[in-house]
Amino acid sequence: MSGTVQDHHVVIVGAGFGGLETVRGLKGAPVRITLIDRRNHHLFQPLLYQVATASLATSEIAWPIRHLVSDRPEVTTLLAEVVAVDTARRRVLLGDGSEVDYDTLVLATGARHAYFGHDEWEPFAPGLKSLEDATRLRRHILLAFERAEREPDPLRRAALLTFVIIGGGPTGVELAGTIAELARVTLWRDYRNIDTRMARTILIEAGPRILPSFPPDLSAYADQALQSLGVEVHLGHAVSACNGKGVVYGDRYLPAATVIWAAGVAASPAAEWLGAPADRAGRVEVEPDLTVPNHPEIFVIGDTAAVTAPDGLPVPGIAPAAKQQGRYVAEVIKARLKGEPAPRPFRYSHAGSLATIGKRLAVIDFGWIKLRGALAWWIWGIAHIFFLIGVRNRLSVALSWLWIHTTGQRSALLITQGRQPGSSEAEARDRPDRAA
Amino acid sequence: MSGTVQDHHVVIVGAGFGGLETVRGLKGAPVRITLIDRRNHHLFQPLLYQVATASLATSEIAWPIRHLVSDRPEVTTLLAEVVAVDTARRRVLLGDGSEVDYDTLVLATGARHAYFGHDEWEPFAPGLKSLEDATRLRRHILLAFERAEREPDPLRRAALLTFVIIGGGPTGVELAGTIAELARVTLWRDYRNIDTRMARTILIEAGPRILPSFPPDLSAYADQALQSLGVEVHLGHAVSACNGKGVVYGDRYLPAATVIWAAGVAASPAAEWLGAPADRAGRVEVEPDLTVPNHPEIFVIGDTAAVTAPDGLPVPGIAPAAKQQGRYVAEVIKARLKGEPAPRPFRYSHAGSLATIGKRLAVIDFGWIKLRGALAWWIWGIAHIFFLIGVRNRLSVALSWLWIHTTGQRSALLITQGRQPGSSEAEARDRPDRAA
Repeated sequence: MSGTVQDHHVVIVGAGFGGLETVRGLKGAPVRITLIDRRNHHLFQPLLYQVATASLATSEIAWPIRHLVSDRPEVTTLLAEVVAVDTARRRVLLGDGSEVDYDTLVLATGARHAYFGHDEWEPFAPGLKSLEDATRLRRHILLAFERAEREPDPLRRAALLTFVIIGGGPTGVELAGTIAELARVTLWRDYRNIDTRMARTILIEAGPRILPSFPPDLSAYADQALQSLGVEVHLGHAVSACNGKGVVYGDRYLPAATVIWAAGVAASPAAEWLGAPADRAGRVEVEPDLTVPNHPEIFVIGDTAAVTAPDGLPVPGIAPAAKQQGRYVAEVIKARLKGEPAPRPFRYSHAGSLATIGKRLAVIDFGWIKLRGALAWWIWGIAHIFFLIGVRNRLSVALSWLWIHTTGQRSALLITQGRQPGSSEAEARDRPDRAA
Repeated sequence: MSGTVQDHHVVIVGAGFGGLETVRGLKGAPVRITLIDRRNHHLFQPLLYQVATASLATSEIAWPIRHLVSDRPEVTTLLAEVVAVDTARRRVLLGDGSEVDYDTLVLATGARHAYFGHDEWEPFAPGLKSLEDATRLRRHILLAFERAEREPDPLRRAALLTFVIIGGGPTGVELAGTIAELARVTLWRDYRNIDTRMARTILIEAGPRILPSFPPDLSAYADQALQSLGVEVHLGHAVSACNGKGVVYGDRYLPAATVIWAAGVAASPAAEWLGAPADRAGRVEVEPDLTVPNHPEIFVIGDTAAVTAPDGLPVPGIAPAAKQQGRYVAEVIKARLKGEPAPRPFRYSHAGSLATIGKRLAVIDFGWIKLRGALAWWIWGIAHIFFLIGVRNRLSVALSWLWIHTTGQRSALLITQGRQPGSSEAEARDRPDRAA
């Protein structure tokens, strides 16, 4: 078959929403595909905060990539980390020193936490991007309650029972609402020396309102709903210092054993690999057809690309945007292989913004209609179950949520992944009471 | 209330089957109870191998201890590691330096792997006792297939696709059957460069037959069933050497990237804490009422105690035995507090032995009837679902099993807990290809 289009090799880096959608869009096209990811699973990131707050198990929101493409013999999956791209020789370089040639390259490598020049905060204010982040955070939150139960000093106990979330976007709002629910509804009967209902959950947002991407009235509603859940919302002050003992924002110092970063992300280093122009968040500034300037054979999509929507605003870093871009790139590749004219430039169409607040409340902005409260929560839940991959996970997540909302009990309250509490390694690494 | 029996303080160390059953048995008794465990969850160990082989999620077989006793205000749960017992002052010493006084002490601290004087084998042949063991083993097994997919050298590839289980008891048989099923049924469609159906699963047992605690005809049946699943069963040779590259048994050297230890356990160090007489496996040789000689206020139960059954054989280290002992100890404590005569000595009653082989086959020995094959598998499954704690987990495990057995697909094929494959830490710690 050498010399035919069957030899056209598409390498896709990243099996998130964008990468997987490119694979789907290329079904039936005369190409070989290599799908590279540094993890063996696709992750449904919109529900990651539910793993961190003990509502869902890891396997309910993750799927082995190999299995998702097992019915596509032309797709080879590689569990490997990309470390560089040689654009001149059209090769992707992997962490083990091996190389993969490509004819077309699609970079869909996502984003990671960004600390705005304060990378030293990362150990004290972890973010939430991977399953490991989520189980580590779950461990940290649950251990804070455990240590508070045994802490005789009232000031230290108060710090152990203070949970700070930095950043008032959807992830911050969802985390704050769920942690407050955990303390006020789920856990309080289980402890003898502390009343977990006295725990403080504090959401710090530097801007003038939470959920800044939503209309102001939905922001105000979410703010009030969070406060009725017991969350303290502090607006208008950025965090100026952060260590293992607490945070400073505005002119206030707040001792807290648990600080969670939900304030910002930066693109993965794809722009550095390519030597391509990038915006301040490190996203590659792509052409209207999502290719890299002067490299029509390289596409960048999802959270790694800076794309402008028809309304002149940047395309948001959410799953539907990445999927639309993945579908578009597959169309461009197929048109090229057929010798057809290129499709018109990528146009993002915004279906809506959703955020859940906890306790069966949510806000939804579809543009043509705005919803808030219980109905929005039901739509949010049904939409997320619908977008989960596979009947098995839909059933399982539906069962987990049904259980939480009928009994108030969570099934995944597990402290795992660390050493036993006695070991010195655990002491050094995991003690939330370093905050006290 | 000082001076009344209400002040009687029972400290129970270990929230396994024995410890929890003691707590249950003491319901309504005029005592305060402190339940100490170094983990926050009770673990249903009989199904742990299913987490290691990607059939079940961790949260399906584990429950937060606090929650299990949340309706018992007289029970305080401590997440802490016991490091010593001061029998003279009746105090338990914890890892953080604090102490807990007791009037009655119940040690139910379980067992750990025993390498028969070869502790240096542990890193190369991990055992299966905790959730962390299970997710680590799952990671190791799945990474072996991933690395084999990318390995050009045929000898190294063969070593990556060789899975050795040492020990032919129920755990070894269950692991061997499930790993063979994973390779032959679940995974083969997902790989492009290897045929996982060619993977070798080898069960090494030093004795003359597998499942030595079962009648010989059931052993023979299980042996044949394993072989029809593709498991190679090697009897009569103990492993004499074990490193990261393979194992030596008899006069054979077998290169293998994955070696799993299912050959033996030793009691936790309770006997050392007490300075009490112990058998070769480190189990405390208790009196007929399960107390420690000369210490009627200290009970030792479950895998930590050496107890003889009415037939003169040692009581096996299985969940029903630990539960019976927990119930018995609660009766003894209650009788003492009421000033009633002590109950007659503990008598173990053996309900039966069960082992599953994979592919819907199992063997059961109830004593009065022996079962094998598909019916035994159904009884095994129903019994295990029945003994799981809570409706939520019963539903969830039933759904997981239904899914596996109707679709052949497993939902928990996740590689987690390590670093990305590119990082040097991951290379040093996790590479199963150190075997090649």
